[in-house]
Amino acid sequence: MLVRGEPVVRGVLEATLEELATVGYGALRIEDVAARAGVNKTTIYRRWPTKQELVGAALRSVTVEWVIQPNTGSLREDLLEVGRHMTAVMSSAGGQALRRILIAEERNPEFMAVAGQFREALDALPRPVIETAKTRGELAPGLDASLLFRFLASILQHRLFIEGRDIDDGFLHQVVDLLLFGALAPDKRT
Amino acid sequence: MLVRGEPVVRGVLEATLEELATVGYGALRIEDVAARAGVNKTTIYRRWPTKQELVGAALRSVTVEWVIQPNTGSLREDLLEVGRHMTAVMSSAGGQALRRILIAEERNPEFMAVAGQFREALDALPRPVIETAKTRGELAPGLDASLLFRFLASILQHRLFIEGRDIDDGFLHQVVDLLLFGALAPDKRT
Repeated sequence: MLVRGEPVVRGVLEATLEELATVGYGALRIEDVAARAGVNKTTIYRRWPTKQELVGAALRSVTVEWVIQPNTGSLREDLLEVGRHMTAVMSSAGGQALRRILIAEERNPEFMAVAGQFREALDALPRPVIETAKTRGELAPGLDASLLFRFLASILQHRLFIEGRDIDDGFLHQVVDLLLFGALAPDKRT
Repeated sequence: MLVRGEPVVRGVLEATLEELATVGYGALRIEDVAARAGVNKTTIYRRWPTKQELVGAALRSVTVEWVIQPNTGSLREDLLEVGRHMTAVMSSAGGQALRRILIAEERNPEFMAVAGQFREALDALPRPVIETAKTRGELAPGLDASLLFRFLASILQHRLFIEGRDIDDGFLHQVVDLLLFGALAPDKRT
C-alpha cells in the first residue's frame, strides 16, 4: 500500500501494513516492523508508543491516497466521480490487501477499536462534497449525508467482492440514482 | 447451517457446507462429504453427479431458511421486516459460516460460477414483495426493484462485519428511508 509523508514515517507505516497482512494484529510486534522497515525500534516507539497507535496511524495513512474532491457543480456528478474512484481504490492491490486485513481481524475487539479511527477518517473524506451540495440546497432536510457515501461504498464493495461482478458506468448510474431519487413512485412520497 | 428437506438430502447438504467451511472448495472431495454424512458416496453421485452440482445445491439449500414474505400492505414496512430478518440471518452462526466460505473462495472462478446460482436464488426471494408493491403502484417507473433488496443486504452486511457495528431499528429506518425517498431535496428532483 502506498503511504505518503516523510520517508522514515512512510517506510514504518508501510512495513506495519505488510506485517499486519502477514502475521495479523495479534502477533504483530514492533521489533518485527522495525526490522522490516530497516529502522531502530526506538525510532518507532518515540513516535508511536503503543501497537494500537502504530496500527491506527498505518490504517489512517492509507486514506491519504483515497482523497478525491470532485467539484462538478452537481451532487449527482460528484457522486459518480466518487464512485468511480472508490471502485478503482477497492480494486487496487492495496485496497484488496486492506480488505483482507479488515476481514481477518473482524472478530478481534482491540483491532476493531483501532480500526474505528480509520472509519472516522474515511467518513471525513466526503465532507467537502457534502458541504457544497448543502450550499446548493441539494440535500433533503434532516439527512445524515455521510450515510450516502458509506452506503455507496457498501454497495460497491459487495458488488466487487461478494458478488464477484464488475462495476461499469451503467451500474454506477443505477446505484447513484437510487440513492439520490429513491425507489418510490413520485405520487407515493407523502 | 440448517438445511431443510428429506433427512438424507439434508444430511448430505449440511455435510457439504461443513466440508466447504473446513477444507475449502478446491480440496473438497465427495468421498469426504459422504464419510461426514455417513452415507455411501454413490448415494451422492446419483443425485449430484459433479462437485459443482453438489456445492450449488448446498448453497441454494441455505436460502430456504432465509425466506420471509412480509405482507404488511406497505413497501416501507415490508422492507423494514426484510431488513430485520436479514440482520438476524447474517448474525446467525450459519450466516457467518457462509460469509466466511464466500470470502475464502472469492478469487476462485469455478466456485464463483457455482455461487452465481446461489445469488440468483437470493435475488428471487423478494419477488413477491416487489410484485405486491408494483400492484399498489409504489415503485418508481423503470426501477429494477431487485437492486433495492441487494443494496439493503450490502449495507447491512458492511455495517455488521466491515464496520463491526450493531444494527438497531433506528439504523434500519435510516437505510430504508434513504433507499425509498432518496437523498435529494424535493425541489431538486427534476
